[in-house]
Amino acid sequence: MKVEEQLNELGITLPDPKAPVANYLGTKQSGAVLHVSARVSEQRGEVGTDVTESEAYAAARHTALVLLAIIKSDIGDLDRIVSIDQVRGYVRSGPRFVRQPKVVDGASDLLVEVFGDAGRHARTATGSPQLPYGASVQLEMTVTLST
Amino acid sequence: MKVEEQLNELGITLPDPKAPVANYLGTKQSGAVLHVSARVSEQRGEVGTDVTESEAYAAARHTALVLLAIIKSDIGDLDRIVSIDQVRGYVRSGPRFVRQPKVVDGASDLLVEVFGDAGRHARTATGSPQLPYGASVQLEMTVTLST
Amino acid sequence: MKVEEQLNELGITLPDPKAPVANYLGTKQSGAVLHVSARVSEQRGEVGTDVTESEAYAAARHTALVLLAIIKSDIGDLDRIVSIDQVRGYVRSGPRFVRQPKVVDGASDLLVEVFGDAGRHARTATGSPQLPYGASVQLEMTVTLST
Repeated sequence: MKVEEQLNELGITLPDPKAPVANYLGTKQSGAVLHVSARVSEQRGEVGTDVTESEAYAAARHTALVLLAIIKSDIGDLDRIVSIDQVRGYVRSGPRFVRQPKVVDGASDLLVEVFGDAGRHARTATGSPQLPYGASVQLEMTVTLST
Repeated sequence: MKVEEQLNELGITLPDPKAPVANYLGTKQSGAVLHVSARVSEQRGEVGTDVTESEAYAAARHTALVLLAIIKSDIGDLDRIVSIDQVRGYVRSGPRFVRQPKVVDGASDLLVEVFGDAGRHARTATGSPQLPYGASVQLEMTVTLST
Repeated sequence: MKVEEQLNELGITLPDPKAPVANYLGTKQSGAVLHVSARVSEQRGEVGTDVTESEAYAAARHTALVLLAIIKSDIGDLDRIVSIDQVRGYVRSGPRFVRQPKVVDGASDLLVEVFGDAGRHARTATGSPQLPYGASVQLEMTVTLST
């Protein structure tokens, strides 16, 4: 349980994962690829107006932990993750907010702290006018599993 | 032709697929993975202001059928679909509309009606300020084919 | 070096690739699949208000070249690209701008000029309210490599 040990060492406890309440899944596996459904942050509000960049960074970091909790719940053991391949972060952006990458860094930094080089990923950090339930950040992921 | 029989049983006729008119494809296959280009709904207008949530749900459902029609036209037989892996739905959202997941449920519900458990997928439902041609919903998909 | 020859023939010089300055990568490979991180255009401004459609088309074309430069820097030889699978283009759109596909055609046309049929791809062209650093266009890609 190397990933769990690393989480312990970082003082991180994974949040309780909540299963989707509709006709989709938290994750879907195809071959070695695991597609992880987007989740929104608990943090609400528009970044750059209602919410600061550093609050949004923290929200992205926490949302990455939520995705890890969902993955763990679905595949049983985070050590089965060979690499984090792709992360997409959508940032609910006020009219003049253009530092979406600095917000999604919250997720990227967490993933590298936990997985080391295997946590480095291709990434899209983009702006949104509105996100589900008024959230500040939305995050999705694709990872490769050992088979 | 199990999928076709299921469509018949549901009383669903696939729309006529239209090929893209530019330098991209309706679908692109790489190994067992079929990437399906995004399509927009025939329904126009901003959801939450011009268009109701239930009209947008119906638009998402119909757009999912358009994607299936395009897939069928490209691969010949919908029974070659092993699973629906990933669905991304972009909802053109008025300033206070935050129920994008309820709209994209229109696509998810249809896929599960037609494909059963194989139709359950990872999903991103997000907000957009503006979509091609003023559409209310835009939908893309990734599926795995039998080889 | 067939792709390089084709670039020469088209009179195209690849721009200098810049490595990401955060905890993510320009590209991430998983099996034969190369995920390419999104990059934004040097062109700034909202399309349809500050920036014309044809300026944005040129920006999308140039951003596709930036992605190719990053891929080349990471994999060494563009001839290792078997096919361009998926392109996602985000267009920073003024309130009435609905021709996002015409903008992303700038990337699609370039890819087909350079790679021929292998350059044809599945595509999503969508609208954004705001992009990193105020850019007009953001582009990401997934390609298959020979192994």
